[in-house]
Amino acid sequence: MTEMTETTPGWLSPEELESARGRMPILYVDAVPVRVDDSGTVTHVGLLLRIGADGTVSRALVSGRVLHHERVRDALMRHLEKDLGPVALPRIPVSPQPFTIAEYFPTEGVTPYHDPRQHAVSLAYVVPVAGDCRPRQDALDLVWFTPEEASSPMVQQEMMGGQGVLLKQALAHIGRLV
Amino acid sequence: MTEMTETTPGWLSPEELESARGRMPILYVDAVPVRVDDSGTVTHVGLLLRIGADGTVSRALVSGRVLHHERVRDALMRHLEKDLGPVALPRIPVSPQPFTIAEYFPTEGVTPYHDPRQHAVSLAYVVPVAGDCRPRQDALDLVWFTPEEASSPMVQQEMMGGQGVLLKQALAHIGRLV
Amino acid sequence: MTEMTETTPGWLSPEELESARGRMPILYVDAVPVRVDDSGTVTHVGLLLRIGADGTVSRALVSGRVLHHERVRDALMRHLEKDLGPVALPRIPVSPQPFTIAEYFPTEGVTPYHDPRQHAVSLAYVVPVAGDCRPRQDALDLVWFTPEEASSPMVQQEMMGGQGVLLKQALAHIGRLV
Amino acid sequence: MTEMTETTPGWLSPEELESARGRMPILYVDAVPVRVDDSGTVTHVGLLLRIGADGTVSRALVSGRVLHHERVRDALMRHLEKDLGPVALPRIPVSPQPFTIAEYFPTEGVTPYHDPRQHAVSLAYVVPVAGDCRPRQDALDLVWFTPEEASSPMVQQEMMGGQGVLLKQALAHIGRLV
Repeated sequence: MTEMTETTPGWLSPEELESARGRMPILYVDAVPVRVDDSGTVTHVGLLLRIGADGTVSRALVSGRVLHHERVRDALMRHLEKDLGPVALPRIPVSPQPFTIAEYFPTEGVTPYHDPRQHAVSLAYVVPVAGDCRPRQDALDLVWFTPEEASSPMVQQEMMGGQGVLLKQALAHIGRLV
Repeated sequence: MTEMTETTPGWLSPEELESARGRMPILYVDAVPVRVDDSGTVTHVGLLLRIGADGTVSRALVSGRVLHHERVRDALMRHLEKDLGPVALPRIPVSPQPFTIAEYFPTEGVTPYHDPRQHAVSLAYVVPVAGDCRPRQDALDLVWFTPEEASSPMVQQEMMGGQGVLLKQALAHIGRLV
Repeated sequence: MTEMTETTPGWLSPEELESARGRMPILYVDAVPVRVDDSGTVTHVGLLLRIGADGTVSRALVSGRVLHHERVRDALMRHLEKDLGPVALPRIPVSPQPFTIAEYFPTEGVTPYHDPRQHAVSLAYVVPVAGDCRPRQDALDLVWFTPEEASSPMVQQEMMGGQGVLLKQALAHIGRLV
Repeated sequence: MTEMTETTPGWLSPEELESARGRMPILYVDAVPVRVDDSGTVTHVGLLLRIGADGTVSRALVSGRVLHHERVRDALMRHLEKDLGPVALPRIPVSPQPFTIAEYFPTEGVTPYHDPRQHAVSLAYVVPVAGDCRPRQDALDLVWFTPEEASSPMVQQEMMGGQGVLLKQALAHIGRLV
């Protein structure tokens, strides 16, 4: 076990555990909630609204860890329910193939994605939601934007860690990038 | 215009027109209707049942031409409604990216797909259907198979023109090929 | 045959033939030539430079029809060789799945893509080219742009018929959209 | 930190560390090495040959972990070089989108993939290799199979943990599943 040093023979402090865990990328999922019309065309993209301790507004995708012994599609379901409420009726994609992966690095500039806390690799999916969305937890609201609005500089600059880029990739994938 | 010969200066017979049209590949769509559970996992695949003039049974995907000035997603909708009835509630994919293309050649062996009538290139999609399916037109029935049954030799040998291969590609794409 | 009118019983004029052909979408391929480094990261995107009769500069992707009895990958090879010369060494993708399809409509606004001459549906691929590119035919030059330059307003406004959008979709697909 | 129990306040044994690490899925990559012709058609698939302590023969894909602060494409490069040698000249895909993900569960039957040691989630890619392959490490040899051979029961039954299924998914993706 390479993480163990001579000074801690057989035992690791919580800090060292954290350090050891930090040595592996953490698996995430990112979901882009969308509204579609009957022909499957995306009409709106949903973004979570968060307000920081300092009052700054930010917009975010539905995002979170995949747990041990949890299927990726179950992780998607869990995070969508956590962020959009129990009656959002998400339609999890039939294919496990993500439209892209987002590699969030603790160092900025390696990829377009950045997470100062950790190295996370996220599987990204577009998820149509048919039901009523009632944001819970730390999100204030879910706001629906047209594809044009979602890729506008105003919305893009309110997204953190490269999620604005990931959103544009989603729009490109669904043929709705302007 | 390269199709015109000296013996028909300025005019083409219907046969020649057919020949001229035959010189371009025809754009098709193929749809694999599926039933999904809440997590998006495909539980069943729907195949149309047809009985030939000689009594032979065959199974088929939902398939047909894309018309002039018709969007691919509208062609998908039209053929699904034609084959599955008006209340099948198909969920057309949000992305226009097909999971594969099937190149049906009039000559056998160029690709796994074959259509003696024409050179057709088909964009293939997996389409969850949530409603009630009532086959119309020339199909006798729509039968739901488990993924295991759908890729079995018995079902595969009842599919024509390489659609059995295309079905297996769909199952592979959705993570349900055994 | 619906194209035939009462005044031309059994025969069609070239104009009517054109009209009949216009009633089917024409199958195209679009290729985005790229340079990659050893890790597969795209460093540059190649665009053809064309100068119109009126002196206007335009940039274009490698693009063209799929012929009757021609495989899509052979059509890609043919158009790449036609536009980039015989020693460009294109690496045709192993998968026939296009990263997207571009539906060029003769009417503007139906999709982001527009072709006043016809309804064309194009299968779009990113193609690494390893060799020496020597544009032929009606292209003056092939210019390599960084991904940042390729999605800049300056380059985008020099692209016609929605190919700028298609280029941004390609950049999104390869993780190089800014 | 949910992993900590009352009996180990502030300190974790190596066993507990292992247990804690086991609570997260480990990120892997799987690569299917292929030979292609000029048109990009896959002609052969490469499988590593391993002989177990008990003399049993097994075939395997190129596979391994993604390290902390390592890009997925660099992990692909590293594992391909480790298993195929330094002059294999792999062509890492331009798009980070895997053709599928393989969820290896420690419990059999949850997915088609199984790893008794851990819960691993693998991003799977098809990688053309143009150079000379010289297997190193614990692999005896790299054997090239035609697509038909690769999906045959004989080869399939020599693959472990569901990699035979993953190989068939790769063949389906590249249009070479029979």
